[in-house]
Amino acid sequence: MKYSVVKIICCSLLVLAARLSYSQDSIKYVDAATLMLIGKAKITDSIYQRIDSMEAKDMPQAVKGLAKQSAGIAILFETNSRSIRAKWSLPKEVYLHNMTPDAHSGLDLYCYKAGKWQFVSIGRVAPGISQNQLIVQNMDNTVKQFMLYLPLYNGISQLQIGIQNTATINKPAQPAINIAKRIVVYGSSVVQGASASRAGMAYPAMLQRRTGYDVINLGFSGSAKMEMPLAKYLATVPADCYVLDCIPNPSPEEISERSYPFIKYLHEQQPAIPIVMVETIFRQNGLWDQQVGNTVKRQNEAIRKTYERLRKEGVKNIYYLESDKLIGDDHEATIDGIHLTDLGFTRIADAILPVIKKALAEKK
Amino acid sequence: MKYSVVKIICCSLLVLAARLSYSQDSIKYVDAATLMLIGKAKITDSIYQRIDSMEAKDMPQAVKGLAKQSAGIAILFETNSRSIRAKWSLPKEVYLHNMTPDAHSGLDLYCYKAGKWQFVSIGRVAPGISQNQLIVQNMDNTVKQFMLYLPLYNGISQLQIGIQNTATINKPAQPAINIAKRIVVYGSSVVQGASASRAGMAYPAMLQRRTGYDVINLGFSGSAKMEMPLAKYLATVPADCYVLDCIPNPSPEEISERSYPFIKYLHEQQPAIPIVMVETIFRQNGLWDQQVGNTVKRQNEAIRKTYERLRKEGVKNIYYLESDKLIGDDHEATIDGIHLTDLGFTRIADAILPVIKKALAEKK
Repeated sequence: MKYSVVKIICCSLLVLAARLSYSQDSIKYVDAATLMLIGKAKITDSIYQRIDSMEAKDMPQAVKGLAKQSAGIAILFETNSRSIRAKWSLPKEVYLHNMTPDAHSGLDLYCYKAGKWQFVSIGRVAPGISQNQLIVQNMDNTVKQFMLYLPLYNGISQLQIGIQNTATINKPAQPAINIAKRIVVYGSSVVQGASASRAGMAYPAMLQRRTGYDVINLGFSGSAKMEMPLAKYLATVPADCYVLDCIPNPSPEEISERSYPFIKYLHEQQPAIPIVMVETIFRQNGLWDQQVGNTVKRQNEAIRKTYERLRKEGVKNIYYLESDKLIGDDHEATIDGIHLTDLGFTRIADAILPVIKKALAEKK
Repeated sequence: MKYSVVKIICCSLLVLAARLSYSQDSIKYVDAATLMLIGKAKITDSIYQRIDSMEAKDMPQAVKGLAKQSAGIAILFETNSRSIRAKWSLPKEVYLHNMTPDAHSGLDLYCYKAGKWQFVSIGRVAPGISQNQLIVQNMDNTVKQFMLYLPLYNGISQLQIGIQNTATINKPAQPAINIAKRIVVYGSSVVQGASASRAGMAYPAMLQRRTGYDVINLGFSGSAKMEMPLAKYLATVPADCYVLDCIPNPSPEEISERSYPFIKYLHEQQPAIPIVMVETIFRQNGLWDQQVGNTVKRQNEAIRKTYERLRKEGVKNIYYLESDKLIGDDHEATIDGIHLTDLGFTRIADAILPVIKKALAEKK
């Protein structure tokens, strides 16, 4: 009798322990939309897209499509969970020969630690559009601030962040990115993030972590061609500094025709906001393909002329970065001669950051 | 009459010119197997695989499979063609979340210029197994020496290199890689090349270009676990230096059990050949996941003990590289905490190269 009482108590304790352990290990999900979004130019109809559909209506079709991709958008939150998971739905399955699935469709998690953002892990991508991944586990249970970057070359239909059932998750009390301070980068695939290994390695994301400013990624792969609707839109996006890295896509003739009215308009609308102009990187295959090499040279000559014209007209808060200072001289910074790898992005961030800092300092 | 003679002559000249231009632009293909192969440990039954099937028969199943992938193999040739194309067949279509299609299944072209290997362009990968791509065009028509790296995480069933019909293609008269000098690297996915952006950015390929030695990539993703059949095979591979970067895959217990007999055997068989031992990189996600962090620490403690035991026994030509010197301290060198990007590979090559040079210098 005594023995069976002990047995019953033991069994009950085991069941209780199992339940407790289950509840600790079980996951609860919160909709990322309830947390803090950064990297957004403005409020949009669908929250994970970059430009509101109504505001995009006069833009080229390609830009409208690319504006639905989530490059540069990230979720800021704090949690004491020992593990972090994510479930996300992609609007479509993407194939890009020169990008990893983790970069075009995956998630990238950083944590703010001792005054710096540090890489934690990724939400890796399986074939298909429904993703459900463990990002990190076995952490200590202190409250930490996290930043979760969204896909660079895909969209997000829905995103849920999973934490331990017993843990808390909230918007950060003191966000380590100051959304009142903003750098707005308009440009090509290089800005959008091809070919970073993961979303946090696109150079606008690096600038964001290094400055603590919110950085708005308006990179439109192959389609940053300086049409006037883009200038009109940019002039309405709150900014402390504009970076124009849009020379790789337009032809030399288009640059000659469009860059002056584009930048002139932006400056007239926002005369106090410094503009950093960036030449196109010298396409590494252009060192072999003489036609490509000649085009790149003419693209940079064309934008240089516009810069000099604006300076001559007395525009002072305009800054200029030359091609040969951007990605080193070992010819190893790209995947395909055109698109930067993490090595190239690290170099271009190193090159652009001091110019942005100078521009911001001289603004004050 | 006179007019129609002129007309006939003109027409004939036009046809001739068109034919000439056609013949200049038309492409002829040569089988890459007739050119010079580098990065091969030994002759194999199928030329684009790394280990001969008979020699692999006692190796683990996973290694046998991975040995069929072409990591580290490259074609050396010289041509005066203005354009270079390639047609290649892949044994299968690969999906890897953390690698670009260009890296796992594509081609990567370098040219030897002014005493250095310089990136030219890639053979990009479309979905499917049959690839047919223009790699570069519009070059000048001097004779140049090229190196074409094969896929890192796939095989090659067939490879043809296309040049202008009027151009020549040959094995190089003076190969810029000296195949009589060899560095043999045995290791994990990091050695095989995950997650380089393209084949030339795996660190063994970088070592090859920087030293001019032939570098043999014996990286077996997830499966470099120091089983004795691998030691026996390695000891038969001609080498001027062995690099053992095989600590990421085995458990700490496996390292304790296997590393001493493995290295001891290799050294006894090849006492004159220096051995460079490399700790596993510190997995960046292990800075957050306490279990992963603890495992990595124990892996490196285990291999360190073996190194110290061998030194104590009087083995002099053994060199040791510590984890904290391999990939920098900004935590940005990996795609997923585990696999190096081009940024990480550049750093690990910078770290390993001086040790290899020291080992080779002390050998002489």
